[in-house]
Amino acid sequence: MPIPSKRVPNRENLADQLRAVRSETERLCVRLTPEDCQLQSMPDCSPPKWHLAHTAWFFETFILASVDPNFQPYNPHFNYLFNSYYDAVGTRWPRHARGLLSRPTLSEVYAYRHAIDEQILARMEAVDGRTFEAIAPFIELGLNHEQQHQELLLTDVKHAFGLNPLKPAYATVDCPALPSETSQRWVRFEPGVRQIGHSGGGFAFDNEGPRHNTYIGGFEIAVRSVTAREYLRFMEDGGYDRPEYWLSDGWAARQQNNWNAPLYWERTVSGWSLFTLRGMLELDPTQPVCHVSLYEADAYARWAEARLPTEAEWEIAATGREIAGNFLDSGLLHPHASESLFGDVWVWTASPYTPYPGFRYATGAIGEYNGKFMCNQMVLRGGSCVTPVGHIRPTYRNFFPPDARWQFSGLRLAKDFTA
Amino acid sequence: MPIPSKRVPNRENLADQLRAVRSETERLCVRLTPEDCQLQSMPDCSPPKWHLAHTAWFFETFILASVDPNFQPYNPHFNYLFNSYYDAVGTRWPRHARGLLSRPTLSEVYAYRHAIDEQILARMEAVDGRTFEAIAPFIELGLNHEQQHQELLLTDVKHAFGLNPLKPAYATVDCPALPSETSQRWVRFEPGVRQIGHSGGGFAFDNEGPRHNTYIGGFEIAVRSVTAREYLRFMEDGGYDRPEYWLSDGWAARQQNNWNAPLYWERTVSGWSLFTLRGMLELDPTQPVCHVSLYEADAYARWAEARLPTEAEWEIAATGREIAGNFLDSGLLHPHASESLFGDVWVWTASPYTPYPGFRYATGAIGEYNGKFMCNQMVLRGGSCVTPVGHIRPTYRNFFPPDARWQFSGLRLAKDFTA
Amino acid sequence: MPIPSKRVPNRENLADQLRAVRSETERLCVRLTPEDCQLQSMPDCSPPKWHLAHTAWFFETFILASVDPNFQPYNPHFNYLFNSYYDAVGTRWPRHARGLLSRPTLSEVYAYRHAIDEQILARMEAVDGRTFEAIAPFIELGLNHEQQHQELLLTDVKHAFGLNPLKPAYATVDCPALPSETSQRWVRFEPGVRQIGHSGGGFAFDNEGPRHNTYIGGFEIAVRSVTAREYLRFMEDGGYDRPEYWLSDGWAARQQNNWNAPLYWERTVSGWSLFTLRGMLELDPTQPVCHVSLYEADAYARWAEARLPTEAEWEIAATGREIAGNFLDSGLLHPHASESLFGDVWVWTASPYTPYPGFRYATGAIGEYNGKFMCNQMVLRGGSCVTPVGHIRPTYRNFFPPDARWQFSGLRLAKDFTA
Amino acid sequence: MPIPSKRVPNRENLADQLRAVRSETERLCVRLTPEDCQLQSMPDCSPPKWHLAHTAWFFETFILASVDPNFQPYNPHFNYLFNSYYDAVGTRWPRHARGLLSRPTLSEVYAYRHAIDEQILARMEAVDGRTFEAIAPFIELGLNHEQQHQELLLTDVKHAFGLNPLKPAYATVDCPALPSETSQRWVRFEPGVRQIGHSGGGFAFDNEGPRHNTYIGGFEIAVRSVTAREYLRFMEDGGYDRPEYWLSDGWAARQQNNWNAPLYWERTVSGWSLFTLRGMLELDPTQPVCHVSLYEADAYARWAEARLPTEAEWEIAATGREIAGNFLDSGLLHPHASESLFGDVWVWTASPYTPYPGFRYATGAIGEYNGKFMCNQMVLRGGSCVTPVGHIRPTYRNFFPPDARWQFSGLRLAKDFTA
Repeated sequence: MPIPSKRVPNRENLADQLRAVRSETERLCVRLTPEDCQLQSMPDCSPPKWHLAHTAWFFETFILASVDPNFQPYNPHFNYLFNSYYDAVGTRWPRHARGLLSRPTLSEVYAYRHAIDEQILARMEAVDGRTFEAIAPFIELGLNHEQQHQELLLTDVKHAFGLNPLKPAYATVDCPALPSETSQRWVRFEPGVRQIGHSGGGFAFDNEGPRHNTYIGGFEIAVRSVTAREYLRFMEDGGYDRPEYWLSDGWAARQQNNWNAPLYWERTVSGWSLFTLRGMLELDPTQPVCHVSLYEADAYARWAEARLPTEAEWEIAATGREIAGNFLDSGLLHPHASESLFGDVWVWTASPYTPYPGFRYATGAIGEYNGKFMCNQMVLRGGSCVTPVGHIRPTYRNFFPPDARWQFSGLRLAKDFTA
Repeated sequence: MPIPSKRVPNRENLADQLRAVRSETERLCVRLTPEDCQLQSMPDCSPPKWHLAHTAWFFETFILASVDPNFQPYNPHFNYLFNSYYDAVGTRWPRHARGLLSRPTLSEVYAYRHAIDEQILARMEAVDGRTFEAIAPFIELGLNHEQQHQELLLTDVKHAFGLNPLKPAYATVDCPALPSETSQRWVRFEPGVRQIGHSGGGFAFDNEGPRHNTYIGGFEIAVRSVTAREYLRFMEDGGYDRPEYWLSDGWAARQQNNWNAPLYWERTVSGWSLFTLRGMLELDPTQPVCHVSLYEADAYARWAEARLPTEAEWEIAATGREIAGNFLDSGLLHPHASESLFGDVWVWTASPYTPYPGFRYATGAIGEYNGKFMCNQMVLRGGSCVTPVGHIRPTYRNFFPPDARWQFSGLRLAKDFTA
Repeated sequence: MPIPSKRVPNRENLADQLRAVRSETERLCVRLTPEDCQLQSMPDCSPPKWHLAHTAWFFETFILASVDPNFQPYNPHFNYLFNSYYDAVGTRWPRHARGLLSRPTLSEVYAYRHAIDEQILARMEAVDGRTFEAIAPFIELGLNHEQQHQELLLTDVKHAFGLNPLKPAYATVDCPALPSETSQRWVRFEPGVRQIGHSGGGFAFDNEGPRHNTYIGGFEIAVRSVTAREYLRFMEDGGYDRPEYWLSDGWAARQQNNWNAPLYWERTVSGWSLFTLRGMLELDPTQPVCHVSLYEADAYARWAEARLPTEAEWEIAATGREIAGNFLDSGLLHPHASESLFGDVWVWTASPYTPYPGFRYATGAIGEYNGKFMCNQMVLRGGSCVTPVGHIRPTYRNFFPPDARWQFSGLRLAKDFTA
Repeated sequence: MPIPSKRVPNRENLADQLRAVRSETERLCVRLTPEDCQLQSMPDCSPPKWHLAHTAWFFETFILASVDPNFQPYNPHFNYLFNSYYDAVGTRWPRHARGLLSRPTLSEVYAYRHAIDEQILARMEAVDGRTFEAIAPFIELGLNHEQQHQELLLTDVKHAFGLNPLKPAYATVDCPALPSETSQRWVRFEPGVRQIGHSGGGFAFDNEGPRHNTYIGGFEIAVRSVTAREYLRFMEDGGYDRPEYWLSDGWAARQQNNWNAPLYWERTVSGWSLFTLRGMLELDPTQPVCHVSLYEADAYARWAEARLPTEAEWEIAATGREIAGNFLDSGLLHPHASESLFGDVWVWTASPYTPYPGFRYATGAIGEYNGKFMCNQMVLRGGSCVTPVGHIRPTYRNFFPPDARWQFSGLRLAKDFTA
């Protein structure tokens, strides 16, 4: 559900965007076999085929079904099969069993996508101006939703490939010369009342608003994310075996899952290797540490005698900075050393995901997009190397449970300062 | 871990307090048989016998063991058996299996308590002034810890008795004439920067500080808790069957556990009855609704077109109010209609339990008291009808996971206001 | 592990058999998409792709690896990926996760099969007579093993398709006119010492021998399996709600899984429908009831005032009968009315699967084929409509746990008689 | 449900037996505290208090309720609380939660027992001869049922005490000088048709009949049980790490539960110790190995190049032998070296627990006593050191699932012989 905005997008531009975003999703699947597109390696992940179908279903449900009084679904089963979590739209196929649907086949899902695209584009052209104004925000929402699934699709493929003993590579990449690691420094921000949140110009999700006052104590934030080199020092200092650094639930998760390194790290005779979308690679210690849970991030920060930033602190630090960095379009598919607050790895914040003061739940199914998840999750900020460029903003709030590790999640340190 | 305080308690007063608090715990068990004291009805609950032993262990470990270089434990197994969650103190008997220890017997546990009391009192008298100043804060902490376990002991007994088909009563109570329900009204608070948190005068837990600035939007808070009568309207309006009012995790919990009323409510031919510490009672609709999860509280608030207060809002409303109400010492053992912000039922707030700005973890085992739980829990405020009087403060932060229902937890509504 | 047999098969015949059996497995997959071949709908089932690969691995491991001192595996990962349960051959990929391997792809698995076939055929031609005699029993074992997996492949596809809301049909079949249901009658057998088990002429699995004496009380066995019509009467008489007919573990399984009809039965407005390999069909009451557990079979028999036959009774009844009936080669893929003891549905017996007197475990990995499963399973006899013709014998012992329902399992009644 | 017998017991004798057996159960509880009597350490075990109450309920339900048209239950909740598994008698309190009932208290349960005893004794005296003949078999059944629970009570107490880190002793025993271990020898039995099962003279459970023909191959059986010394050799030879000796389900159980010695064995610096009802003892290698599962017994036998006897073989060997040995009345509460086929340890047989040919299920609740468990369990024979003397017979069939280890279960080897 977007924050209402005065700006009405141009029809042609929006149609071009639709074509671009929709075909980008399919481009991401070109390297995958039909078998790959069937994989669901854990309940939190979805098969690529399901991502392809669900994003089409989103347009069908929230645009086609709402504008056309004579709407006939493409296939009467698809609402049941491809609804993700919208209770208002009806019951649905169990999430953990999405990998058990060999039918519709991958090519049938592509046919579904293309039929929906055609109908949407035809509608966009045919409707009068007022109707266009009414549906344009939902088309924009659908495109942003699709971009979120582009990132999820890649994180889910990485997870599924990562557990296959054959360690298949999603892509081969000629890696350019990259800037080297910089030394850690801190940027200082003075205490006082500040404003955070989205003010409504341009697209934003409803959870980014309303813009509101917040009191910030004085703080410092690091100029770059924590690197693998730094994280290794934590590990070598027994970080995974010293409960004094860990939250209670974090220590329980570490014990139960036998965590002793970030996800995808494997110890070899010569050191550490990583599973990546480019296959197994030797660990490059200059890269940001990635695929850690909030629990690991928090334990690291405590060990380092610092803390995670709150989401307000991060946003204040990011406001006014150029949104540049290593995103999906770089094609690197892996984080690299950088001082940007954007791209490479999402950073865990110390902030539970809660509604901003004055937040209102939209009515109807679309109100379920963000609001109902505002419990038991933590906010991440900044985007990653698999976030589509143009999708991120300083006010953007991503959120995952504190034990999630399969996203491209890292951390950046913060500290109080006292004048 | 208490907030450091300049004030040093008087030796005699503290000894009197110790005798009073410690004997109060035992008084609560007079009505229980040895079999009752063995009961653990779910992993979150502990047997009364374990509460009795663990609170003695707390004094033994954090006072006796720390002051005496020749300290010999009362029983070398007890550190393993009665440590609750302090990783720094060593491994421990699994929490979910506390009900499986018939030995030590109840009378052996009482002997343990009395031996520890004697040793503590002897130490308090014998030590020099400087040592007394050093241990006094830990004795105070031990007493506040014991009071927390007095409440837990009663909530755990209620849970265990509540599932017994014989529905035994913990106590018989001659109920006095009680004030009747008042109509709902709202109290308004202006926006601005406010201070919350404990400033260090008198005892407080470490999680109540530091005192700090926070920005509050304008809000209104209800003069009383939501009553059973009001909650019944939510139920009759299909509240338990309408996902649109529920957080996603809340709806999942409601489905999985088949919730359709607060815990301990039972539908009878003539209406609703409640299991209470006084046995089965007919529902009194003027009483505050109690034994609801955060999820139910939040769903009710959304249905009522209001919201839960944040903990800062609640504290601002409570500051300066008299701490009077229906506590453990009333002997009622059940919430009744009242306009006090204190007593009767803890109220769920909209605030996840996180560290205040500038919070520092104490080093050593005692640092595990509060800090390591600052994730995945929600703050409750105000105390209940089984909280020992004198134990509560406006800054007091209780915390439980959002699906917990066996505590005396209710809710009080809040609203934004816009001038 | 076959029972040793004097008979040495002819090289050419065996090569022809190998080509026939191996290509039959692939023929069964022609109707399946790559996505279908990836499906694992429960831990007991395996994906078709895994069946294809595992049966090749069986030949590679038990023939190629054993005859060639310079043996190089086709792919060094495949022993880990495609070993089913042979501890002596090494560790293996977890059974429940066979559906999570998108790589090797289906076409890579076909390439693997064909390479192994070529090597086996080349070996069969090249080796001297003595070596041929040594490997021939293992080739025969490999072919019988492959036939078992042909049946499993179809039962597993049926299970996976059966839970898909689209209810895809594996095949379309023009069903011929079939013989109609016959009335129930009984065949009588006199008491006395009899011999059962395989005597070693022709191929048999090791668990079919040794041939041995057994004492049989007088009994009668029904001329046909229990039909759907008869089973419906049990259901209509409350069979699924009357614990007095059920074994204790059976009743627990019925309660826990909410069984109230055979697997694949669905109640419709007009009666009952069945999911079959030919898609959804209306229930034909003349057909044998199928896809029931031992528990349901046993409960039915008790309700019908009869019992299940022991495996010895069934074998005595079947000895000397023509092995004709509705097998895989009929193409019907579904049981039909018949009086044959062979084909249509496996029948549950009252006999736990235990070693025959004098049974010896073969040494080495091949000894794990049958013997180690001789606990907690029940014997089924007679073959089904998806058993390859030529694979069944009167002495053939199939076995599954008593709660298994996804095999083509039905029942035939027996009774004691007293002269 | 007993096998019908012509013999009618004498009223006075039966009343004496009733007093003796009922008071014996209470004698076993004299050493237990009320807390001990509340313990349920796993779902398969029951608290002593529950055993005390359930055995009273058995008499109340199957005798008092059936003879008296005006029967009023002692307490209307007790049928729900103390029914074990009789579906025909109604729903019941969940088995795994028997330890959660602190009320009725232990003394209330004793009062229940005594009231039932009085009523039963009064009935026995008051009824006419024909009624006495009708109820006498049920009283005998009740007494044999009570004796079974005497053994279970001790095995359950042992399990609960065994996991307590304090390792409490149930009893202190002055152990007499005991006969020493004898060397292993074999007794031979010729092949042929034999009869096993109970013929109806004197009390027997229904599952012991009908007496029937069975064909036995020639076999040899060991003169004594396998000793701890012998079992240690299996352990030292890697028995717990070599899957080739194990049934598939057994190996899975061994892996999942991390078995590497019999239950209650603990490795110490100086060797092995055992938890016993007499507390922790050093392992005496001459004693029979005890507290092994069928899986361990079977693996040992395979390692020893022998096998377990079938139940028919054991019964043929035991028929005509004196029923003497180390039973509950010896007071030793632990197995010792002996050549008797009776007492010390139950021995696992190779026979799944199935109905004998011609077995009929009794109608009504009492028919659930034995018959409905005839699946997924294995037969044990001979009685143990906690079996009440007079309770055992050569035809007696005990039965437990193959992974059960908390009973006093050991093994005795057998072999085929070929003339």
